[in-house]
Amino acid sequence: MMMDKGLSIRQVEDYLSVAENYIDIVKLGWATSYVTPNLEQKIEAYHQAGIPVYFGGTLFEAFIVRDQFDDYRRILDKFKIFHAEVSDGSIEIEHDAKCHFIQELSKDFVVLSEVGSKDEEKIIPPYQWIKLMNAELAAGAWKVIGEARESGNVGLFRASGEVRQGLVDEILTSVPSDKIIWEAPQKSQQAWFVKLCGPNVNLGNIAPEELIPLETIRLGLRGDTFSHF
Amino acid sequence: MMMDKGLSIRQVEDYLSVAENYIDIVKLGWATSYVTPNLEQKIEAYHQAGIPVYFGGTLFEAFIVRDQFDDYRRILDKFKIFHAEVSDGSIEIEHDAKCHFIQELSKDFVVLSEVGSKDEEKIIPPYQWIKLMNAELAAGAWKVIGEARESGNVGLFRASGEVRQGLVDEILTSVPSDKIIWEAPQKSQQAWFVKLCGPNVNLGNIAPEELIPLETIRLGLRGDTFSHF
Amino acid sequence: MMMDKGLSIRQVEDYLSVAENYIDIVKLGWATSYVTPNLEQKIEAYHQAGIPVYFGGTLFEAFIVRDQFDDYRRILDKFKIFHAEVSDGSIEIEHDAKCHFIQELSKDFVVLSEVGSKDEEKIIPPYQWIKLMNAELAAGAWKVIGEARESGNVGLFRASGEVRQGLVDEILTSVPSDKIIWEAPQKSQQAWFVKLCGPNVNLGNIAPEELIPLETIRLGLRGDTFSHF
Repeated sequence: MMMDKGLSIRQVEDYLSVAENYIDIVKLGWATSYVTPNLEQKIEAYHQAGIPVYFGGTLFEAFIVRDQFDDYRRILDKFKIFHAEVSDGSIEIEHDAKCHFIQELSKDFVVLSEVGSKDEEKIIPPYQWIKLMNAELAAGAWKVIGEARESGNVGLFRASGEVRQGLVDEILTSVPSDKIIWEAPQKSQQAWFVKLCGPNVNLGNIAPEELIPLETIRLGLRGDTFSHF
Repeated sequence: MMMDKGLSIRQVEDYLSVAENYIDIVKLGWATSYVTPNLEQKIEAYHQAGIPVYFGGTLFEAFIVRDQFDDYRRILDKFKIFHAEVSDGSIEIEHDAKCHFIQELSKDFVVLSEVGSKDEEKIIPPYQWIKLMNAELAAGAWKVIGEARESGNVGLFRASGEVRQGLVDEILTSVPSDKIIWEAPQKSQQAWFVKLCGPNVNLGNIAPEELIPLETIRLGLRGDTFSHF
Repeated sequence: MMMDKGLSIRQVEDYLSVAENYIDIVKLGWATSYVTPNLEQKIEAYHQAGIPVYFGGTLFEAFIVRDQFDDYRRILDKFKIFHAEVSDGSIEIEHDAKCHFIQELSKDFVVLSEVGSKDEEKIIPPYQWIKLMNAELAAGAWKVIGEARESGNVGLFRASGEVRQGLVDEILTSVPSDKIIWEAPQKSQQAWFVKLCGPNVNLGNIAPEELIPLETIRLGLRGDTFSHF
C-alpha cells in the first residue's frame, strides 16, 4: 500500500510508470484528499492503472466526530471509491461503535480497519491489539492495518522507529498474517517484516519513491535482505 | 513561504497544480538561484501563478561580503524580483549597517529581514532577538524571519529540532505575530506554531511536498492538530 | 556521482534540466535496475546528456553469488553500459578473487571498485582500507569507492552519520584523493569532504534533489562552507 500525501497528476503518472506492478492499493494519506484540487482526476489515474484508492482514516474520523457518517458514505460514492478505512487514531469511540461502522460500510465497501493510536503516549498491550483486530475482522473488515503514521514512530514502533517485536510476534500467534497490513514507512522496518513474514508481506505507508527500493528488499536484491533468501 | 532549492520548471508546475492556493511567497533557497540554469523561466512560472519570488539571504550576503551591494540591486532588477531578503546568517555585519541595507532596499523592494545565525554554536538571548527584530521592522522590513535553515535545527530550534519555547513566547510579547515568519521545516515544528499562533501563522522553509500536509495541519485535519480546533 | 534509485524517465529529464552540468556519472542504486521497467530508455536518456551510467555493486554481487559472471558481462553489453562496479558489500569473496574480477572487467569496462561493508557491525581498520584500495587500483580499477550506503551510516561513517575522520585522514596519506569517490549522502558529510579535499572532491550517492544544494556547498554559497573559500 502506497501513501500519496498530495502528488500532482504528473507525479502520479511518473510513479505508475516505474512501479505500477508493485502497488496493490493507494491511500490518500489522512485527510489530504480534502485539500488537493485534483482529486477526481487523480483517482481516475490510479483506477485506469487498475489500482484501487481509498481515503486515509483521518478523513473518516473528521466526519464521525461531526456526526456525519451518512455524508461520508455519500463522499465515497461521489468519488467512486470502493474501499473505506475505519480508524480511531485521533478520536475516541467505543469499540462497539467502531465495529458497527465497519459492519455498515462493509455492506457496500471493502473495509480496511486500523488499530493503534496516533498518540505516542497511548500504549495498547498486545492482548488488546489481538482482541481489537479479531473483532474488527469479525465485523467485516477485509484487512486490519497496524498503525505507524507517515513517520513510523508510533503504534507498532517505538519513538525511535524500532519495531515492538514482542507485540508483532504475539499478534501473529492469533491473527492470520495475510489479514494484516503493517504500516512500515522506514527501510529498516520494511526489511524486518520481510525477514519475518516473507517477501509477500502486506506493508503500508510506503512513500512513492520507496516502491522500487522496497521491491528490491522483497527480492533479496538489497544489502538488507541479500543473504536472507 | 515555500522553499525551492533547485526545482525544474516541470516540478514547479507540478507543485503549483496541487498547492498554488497554499503558497504566499517562494524563496529560492540560499544561493541556489546562482547555480540553476532555468532561473528566468522559473521566476516567470511563479509570477504567472501570482506568487512572488525572492532570493535566499545567503545570496545577498555573498554580494555584501564582496562589497557589491549595487550589483545585488541590479540583479534583482534584472530578474524582475520585487522582494529582497536581508540577512546575516553567514557573515558578521554591524547591526547599523544591516538596518541601513534594509532601509535602502525598502525604497524599491519589499524587504524580508532575517534574524538568527546559521551557526548552531551562536546563541542569541531572547531580549536580543526582540531588539534586532524591532529595529529591523523600524528600518523598513515588511516582515522579519526567524532563522532555522532548511533542516530546522538552529536559531529558533535546538540541534534536536525541538522548539526554543521560551524564546518564542518572549518574542511574541514584544513583536506582533503577523510581522514574523517562523522558519519551521519539520512537521512537529509546524504543528507547534499552528497550536500556539493559530491556523494562519506565517511559516517558512516549507518543502514543496509538505505544502499539502501543512494545510491539513492548519485545518485540524491531521492527527497532530485534530482535536485542537 | 548521483544515485538514481528508481526515477521515471520524466524525473530523469527534470533533474538533467537543472543539474546536467553537475553530474559526472550516475549509479542505478544497488539492484534497482533489475526491477525498473524503463531501463533501456533511462540509460539512453542519461547517455544523450553525455553522462555515463552504471549498475550498483549489489547487482554484480547478485550475479557472482549465483556464479554467473559471464551472464553479468552479457547484461552490461546488452544495455550498452561502459562502466562496471565490483563490490563485496553483501557477500564474502576472497580479495584475490575480487581483484581478479576487477582485472577481467577492466579489459572491456571502466571499473569502479568499492571498499567497505554494508554491515555496520563489520569495522575494517584503516591500514586494511588502504591495502584493499591500493590492490584494487593496481588490479585495474579506475576509481575506488568508499562505502556508505544510501543512508550514510556505515563504512566511512558511524551509525550516527558522523565521519570517521581518522580513517579518512589515514586513507589520504596513502591513496591519491582523485582516485577515490567518497559516498557522502548527507549534507554535513558533503560539507566535511569539501572542506578537507577542496571543491572538486569526488562525492558519491548524491540524491537527485541534492545536486543543486551540493553545488552551492562546493562553491562556498551555502552557510556550511560560506567562509571557507
